[in-house]
Amino acid sequence: MGSFLIAGRFMLTMTGSGIGIIENGAVVVEGQEIKEVGASSELEKKYPGLPRLGGRDKIVMPGLIDAHIHTGIALLRGTAQDTKNWMQQGIAPFKRHMQPRDIRLGSMVNIMEGLKNGTTTFADYDFPLDDIIENYLEIGARACLASTINELSPGMDKLKIGELYPLDESIGRERLAKALELIEKWESRGEGRLTFLLGPQGPDMLGEKLLGEIKDLSRKQGYKIHMHVAQGDREIDQMEKRYGIRSVPFLEKQGLIDEDLIAVHLTEATDLETRLLAEKGAKMVHCPGSIGIIDGLVPPVLEFLQAGGQAALGSDQAPGNNCNNMFNEMKMACVLNKVKKGDPTVMPAWKALRMATIEAANVLGLENILGSLEPGKKADLLIIDLNQPTLVPALSHPVRNIAPNLVYSARGNEVETVLINGEIVVEKRKIKKVDEEEICREANKAGVELGERAAEDILSSANEMVKMMEEGYL
Amino acid sequence: MGSFLIAGRFMLTMTGSGIGIIENGAVVVEGQEIKEVGASSELEKKYPGLPRLGGRDKIVMPGLIDAHIHTGIALLRGTAQDTKNWMQQGIAPFKRHMQPRDIRLGSMVNIMEGLKNGTTTFADYDFPLDDIIENYLEIGARACLASTINELSPGMDKLKIGELYPLDESIGRERLAKALELIEKWESRGEGRLTFLLGPQGPDMLGEKLLGEIKDLSRKQGYKIHMHVAQGDREIDQMEKRYGIRSVPFLEKQGLIDEDLIAVHLTEATDLETRLLAEKGAKMVHCPGSIGIIDGLVPPVLEFLQAGGQAALGSDQAPGNNCNNMFNEMKMACVLNKVKKGDPTVMPAWKALRMATIEAANVLGLENILGSLEPGKKADLLIIDLNQPTLVPALSHPVRNIAPNLVYSARGNEVETVLINGEIVVEKRKIKKVDEEEICREANKAGVELGERAAEDILSSANEMVKMMEEGYL
Repeated sequence: MGSFLIAGRFMLTMTGSGIGIIENGAVVVEGQEIKEVGASSELEKKYPGLPRLGGRDKIVMPGLIDAHIHTGIALLRGTAQDTKNWMQQGIAPFKRHMQPRDIRLGSMVNIMEGLKNGTTTFADYDFPLDDIIENYLEIGARACLASTINELSPGMDKLKIGELYPLDESIGRERLAKALELIEKWESRGEGRLTFLLGPQGPDMLGEKLLGEIKDLSRKQGYKIHMHVAQGDREIDQMEKRYGIRSVPFLEKQGLIDEDLIAVHLTEATDLETRLLAEKGAKMVHCPGSIGIIDGLVPPVLEFLQAGGQAALGSDQAPGNNCNNMFNEMKMACVLNKVKKGDPTVMPAWKALRMATIEAANVLGLENILGSLEPGKKADLLIIDLNQPTLVPALSHPVRNIAPNLVYSARGNEVETVLINGEIVVEKRKIKKVDEEEICREANKAGVELGERAAEDILSSANEMVKMMEEGYL
Repeated sequence: MGSFLIAGRFMLTMTGSGIGIIENGAVVVEGQEIKEVGASSELEKKYPGLPRLGGRDKIVMPGLIDAHIHTGIALLRGTAQDTKNWMQQGIAPFKRHMQPRDIRLGSMVNIMEGLKNGTTTFADYDFPLDDIIENYLEIGARACLASTINELSPGMDKLKIGELYPLDESIGRERLAKALELIEKWESRGEGRLTFLLGPQGPDMLGEKLLGEIKDLSRKQGYKIHMHVAQGDREIDQMEKRYGIRSVPFLEKQGLIDEDLIAVHLTEATDLETRLLAEKGAKMVHCPGSIGIIDGLVPPVLEFLQAGGQAALGSDQAPGNNCNNMFNEMKMACVLNKVKKGDPTVMPAWKALRMATIEAANVLGLENILGSLEPGKKADLLIIDLNQPTLVPALSHPVRNIAPNLVYSARGNEVETVLINGEIVVEKRKIKKVDEEEICREANKAGVELGERAAEDILSSANEMVKMMEEGYL
C-alpha cells in the first residue's frame, strides 16, 4: 500500500446518473482511500512526486462488485449444464462428497477468475465460510459475506422432487449461531475488506420463527439480509405446500420486505410482487447468466427498476452460470433483457456498468465506501488497456463508445491492473499474492478425486450428462 | 510450416454425432495437413523424432469457423449500441466517411480479435475485399470470401425509413464483375487459405434479373451463394413493397432455395419459411449476439435444426454485435435459445461446438478440408490451456465437463496456440506475424479521425447515442 496517481484517457467515476466520465482524468490514492479525483493535468501538477499508474491508453474505473456468488461450490464447474433438474440431480450428488479442501480450492479458483476480470468485491453467500474468508485475505480481495442459514437436514437432497422438505429448527439455530460467531471472529480483520450480511437461504429453507428472529437481529445490529427470494418454481411450490402462500406475500406478512432486504433472483416473482418489493425499498440482485442457463428464464429486473428499485448483478455460481466474470454478467443482463422485451434499447450498457459498480454498492449498503471514484471512498479500482482489439477504437467524439465497448465487446482480460483497498493485487494481468497455475493444478487434481468419490452416486442416478456421454455427444 | 505431434489431455475431433472426444490423444501434422489422429501413446512411439506441441494440460480441437462476418466495418465498433435505427441512423452516417485505410485497419483489428480467440476461418462478406484479403494473407488466417453484390446507389442511406430503395442494375452488374475478378485474382494465392462464395447482399438489395444470373453462375461454376435472408423487418417491408411477396417465397419462386444457398440470419422467417429452407437443403448462419443486440430477437435456428437443416454460427460485425469472438457466439447461441424456449436443455454446449466447427464447414461447403481432426484435412487447430480458472476442473469421470466449460465458461483467451494450414500463427497468445499493439494504436488514431470527419453528419441527425451523451449517461 502506498500513494499513487492513476491517470486514464477515460475515467469512469460512476457519479451522477450515468458513467460519470472524465476524459484525461486522474485519481490520487493515499493509503486505502481515494484522496482526490480530477483532471490529470491539474493533479499531475499538484502531486508531482507521486508514483504513476495508468496512462493515456487506459480506462480507469471502480472495481466491479459481484453481488451474489457462491464460491464454495466452484469445483463443480461444468457438471450440470443443459439439464433439467440442475440442483437435485445435477449438483447435489457431487456436493455431498465435497471435503473442506475442495471448497477451499474451488473457491480460490473462483476468486482468481473474478479478480483477474475486474471483480474487487465478492458478495459470497455460502457455508462454511471460514476457509473462504482465508482465501479472500490471502489474495487481497474484498468480500461482503453472508453465512447461509437453513434448517435442512443433510438427507434433503435425496427427497423426491416436489416432496416437502422437513425443517429442523435446531439446525437453523446452530447455523445462525455460527453466522454470528463468524462475524465476531472476522469483522475486525482484513483492514476493512470484510463486511457482513445475514443470510437466510430462502423463505422455503427455514421456518418462520427463525426467520423472524433473524429479522429482529438485522434491525438491532444493522446487518442487511441477503436472501434467495422466488428463486424457482421449486421454492414457490414448497411455500404453497407449507404455508398456502407464495414467497413474496409470505415475506411481506413476516415484515421482511423493507430496505434491508437484498432479494436475490426473483425468477418466479410476478409483476405485482416485483413492484411491491421495489416500492418497499427492498433491493434486487439479478443473475442473468446463471438463471438463463439453469432455468432458461430472464428474471423481472426491468420491472423492478421501473418501479424505482435498485438492482445489482451477480454471477451466482460456477456449476450453474459456469463462470464468474462480471463482464459476462453485464453483457448477459443487456442482451437477455433486450431479447425478453424484443427491444434493443432496454438495459443499455451504461446501466449495466452502474449495476456492477455504484448501484451494487447501494444494494449491499456499501455506498459510502465503494462503487464510484470519489474522495474518501476505498481505492478499489481497475486499469484497463485500450490497446486491445476488443476496445478499438476508443472514441469520444461525436459519440463516446467506451460504455458499449466495455459491456458488449470486452471479455474481462482487458483488465491489466487491479487495486483493492489501495493495494495492487493484480499487475500485468497476474495475481500478485498467489500462484495461479499451481492452484489450478491442485484444483484440477481435487476435482478429479471428487469425481471419483461421487461417481457411484452420479452413475446410479438419472444424470442427464451421463446420458449425453453414453450417447456420444460429450 | 513443418511437422508436429500435438498432444492433448482432451482431443475434440468433432467426428461422429458429438464432440468426438479422444482422451490423451494426439494429432500428427505434416505440412498443411493432418496426417494421423489417435492415442497419444501410440503416435509418440510411431513418430519419436517429431517436435511436440500441446501436452497433458491441454485441449486440442479444430479451429473455429466464423461463418458470417463483415470485418470491413470494424472501425465502427461501439458506435450504435442500445439504439433503434441501427443501420440507417447508427452505422450509415459513419460508414460513408470511411476511407480504404479505415477498412484495412479495422478489418485487421477484427481478424486479430477472432484469431486470438480461436477463429481460424473467417467467412468475410464485404466490399471491397482486396485490402481485407491482404490482411488475411499477412496474418496467415483462412478466409471464405463473398464480395457483396447489390444495386444500391450511394445515396441510399439517406432515404427515409420505409421508402423503397431505388435499384440500379448497372451498379449490380459492376459489383458482380468485380466479384468475379476478385476470385480470378486471388483464388490461386494463399496456399489454399482463400476460398470463395457469391454474395448477393439480400433479396431486397438487387433486382431479380441479376439474382437469377448469379444463381446460374453458381450452378455452372460451383460457388455457393452466401446471402442475408429475412434479416429484418426492413427487408420484408422492401420485398412486400417491391414484389408483393416476402423474402423466402420470393427466393423459392426464383429457384434460389437449394443446398447451395447459405441463408444468413432468418430473423424474420416464419416457422413455415424456416422449415421450407431446411427441407430444401439450404444452410443457415445464426448470429445470436448480433441479432440479440441490434434487434432484441432470437432467430429461428432451433426450428431450422429440427427440420433437419444444418446451421453455423457467425459473429456478424463489430458495430452491431460489438465483438467477433466465437466463444461469445457459442455461449450466446446456447443461452439465448434456452431463454427463447424457457427450456435449459435446448441448444446444448456440444451442439454449439459443432456449429462452430464441423457443421460450419458443412454449411460453407468446406467439409472436405475443415471442421474436424481427421487425416487429410487441413491442419487448422487450437491448443487450449486447461490451467486457466475458467476451465478448472477438467473432468472425465463420472461426467465429462469439457464441452460445457468451453462454451459457458471460457472467454477465448484460454486459446494458447493456433495453427492454420499447418503453420503456427498464434503462439503463447501472441499473433506471430503482425504487431498487435501497433495496429491497435493506428486503428485508434484512424477511428478518432473518422469520428471527426463523420461528426457533422452524426450530430445533425437524431442519433440516439449523442442524446445519451447529452443526458449524461455515456
